[in-house]
Amino acid sequence: MRGVMLHSPGDVRVEEREDPKITRPTDAIIRLAATCVCGSDLWSYRGVNDVTEPQPMGHEYVGVVEEIGDDVSTVKPGDFVVGSFMASDGTCEICQAGYQSRCAHVVPVGGFGTQAERALIPWADGTLVATPGMPDDDLVPSLLAASDVLGTGWFAAEAAAVEPGKTVVVVGDGAVGLLGILAARELGAERIIAMSRHVSRQQLAKEFGATDIVVERGDEGVERIKEMTGGYGAHSVIEAVGTQESMMQAIRSTRPGGHVGFVGVSHGVELPGEELFYSAVHLHGGPAPVRRYLPDLIERIVSRKINPGKVFDLTLPLDEAAEGYRAMDERRAIKTLLTV
Amino acid sequence: MRGVMLHSPGDVRVEEREDPKITRPTDAIIRLAATCVCGSDLWSYRGVNDVTEPQPMGHEYVGVVEEIGDDVSTVKPGDFVVGSFMASDGTCEICQAGYQSRCAHVVPVGGFGTQAERALIPWADGTLVATPGMPDDDLVPSLLAASDVLGTGWFAAEAAAVEPGKTVVVVGDGAVGLLGILAARELGAERIIAMSRHVSRQQLAKEFGATDIVVERGDEGVERIKEMTGGYGAHSVIEAVGTQESMMQAIRSTRPGGHVGFVGVSHGVELPGEELFYSAVHLHGGPAPVRRYLPDLIERIVSRKINPGKVFDLTLPLDEAAEGYRAMDERRAIKTLLTV
Repeated sequence: MRGVMLHSPGDVRVEEREDPKITRPTDAIIRLAATCVCGSDLWSYRGVNDVTEPQPMGHEYVGVVEEIGDDVSTVKPGDFVVGSFMASDGTCEICQAGYQSRCAHVVPVGGFGTQAERALIPWADGTLVATPGMPDDDLVPSLLAASDVLGTGWFAAEAAAVEPGKTVVVVGDGAVGLLGILAARELGAERIIAMSRHVSRQQLAKEFGATDIVVERGDEGVERIKEMTGGYGAHSVIEAVGTQESMMQAIRSTRPGGHVGFVGVSHGVELPGEELFYSAVHLHGGPAPVRRYLPDLIERIVSRKINPGKVFDLTLPLDEAAEGYRAMDERRAIKTLLTV
Repeated sequence: MRGVMLHSPGDVRVEEREDPKITRPTDAIIRLAATCVCGSDLWSYRGVNDVTEPQPMGHEYVGVVEEIGDDVSTVKPGDFVVGSFMASDGTCEICQAGYQSRCAHVVPVGGFGTQAERALIPWADGTLVATPGMPDDDLVPSLLAASDVLGTGWFAAEAAAVEPGKTVVVVGDGAVGLLGILAARELGAERIIAMSRHVSRQQLAKEFGATDIVVERGDEGVERIKEMTGGYGAHSVIEAVGTQESMMQAIRSTRPGGHVGFVGVSHGVELPGEELFYSAVHLHGGPAPVRRYLPDLIERIVSRKINPGKVFDLTLPLDEAAEGYRAMDERRAIKTLLTV
């Protein structure tokens, strides 16, 4: 089959890869309907994460089940499925508590690489959710978004304790930040302030529910948020970048007793304990337990209540994946969908 | 009046100080019934915090109201009162949300010093709570504990989301950690594991509700907690020390999705962002909003449901404060009560 391999930073190739095989009775194999490039793929693409040998890429996916192991009972060949980027057994205490991305037997799907024609999905029962029937083609991008960026934005909003009546700040205007805005709107936030200085992203932010845009960053950005919130700071802040600057901007924009939901994969972040102590914020984040949200998100998508697929502003065939990475790296595209 | 002053690290003197005066209509003056030495006072006593000039000491207090400003309406002269170590207006959005220790107009009571015969309490209406009538003498230590260490342990347990059925770990066996155990028991925890290697403190821990004692620390301590919790880690962890070691021990002892309540005043702590991200814990803490809990805690104390005053294992007259500090510094005493 054809699949994307990253040979070294910046060197994305679509090449012949071995077809996946069922090796455990809990595995499934899917034929991809669509896949995409994640902001977190750029950490390796840019060489921030080490790339010591050619690695398969991609962890977001929707597709049709082709084959299942003997123990798989909740999905069957022919089902259209969405799954999380982390495969989870669904039965351990951590899964049962809703933290499937940190399952006691978690397997990162990215290790197999879903930017390909087919993909192995471990723990199929605990990981995949079938859609009700075959979805219309125009719903595929939104369902694909659910497998990571929508689920991650949703988790960030819940981790930030977004509720009706609250003022929410979103730090980061990538796909996750933008879908954090959509989640905050769906969860009933009264005011949603997007911190963004890119016109095209500001527009999508507004479409998803942002009521205000703040272009300032860092201390100036924090000052602006304080001014807009009676001097107190926001109730809920979503952090969707993962740098020292964005984390401190998020924490400092939050009022005492407020909540920071952080989902940007941390790179080089060191949080000063004393400042965190006196901030008196709630801090919660990590790899989003997307699986927890999938049934609800699929329902909202197929009933056309939400349209998260709009984050894909570039669609290319799988064979042109390299251009998809380049466009995101250069911020020409928010997110690239790859058709398979 | 007589009052404690710290002249330099280790140099505690009880000397003549000016009597407090009402300067704002929201002030009250109380005559202390009892006061005490806090673990956090030791940071200055040991020179970890700078002591650039002689400073009044003490922020824990119970006593009788002597005088009130014109705007004070909820307490009156003759009332026996308990108050938080942070004076709060009680009316700002932060106070209304229950985070009085981070009130928009907060005043640390420690700035006036309650290790003295009298003390000024700013924002009397938002800070003080009167007991129902004059309490029996034997309840005074417990009421005094409510003004900081009990309220702080209680906040830590709530920040750690302690609930019936949960396994709780307590890092730190000082007065706050011990009262975190008491709070966890009152909040219905199923299992309470105290991390302590001091026999006298282990005994009090068990009396307050600890079901297990772990003497190991650091990585070994974490390993032991994992073994005791099916490999997952605890649901709820209370951190009551404030060092890098204790914070990491707390975070690493918590299962993904679990909660860390940290109330040890942070000193030199830097939290690694990446580890915090993948830990997927909830982190919440800071200066405890003791005022939020006072009505409930007073009720539990005067009805003799709880006896937090047991943390005071040394009682001295105010004039012997220096020995009270020494005994705590050398860990000969858990906590020193000073009679006035």
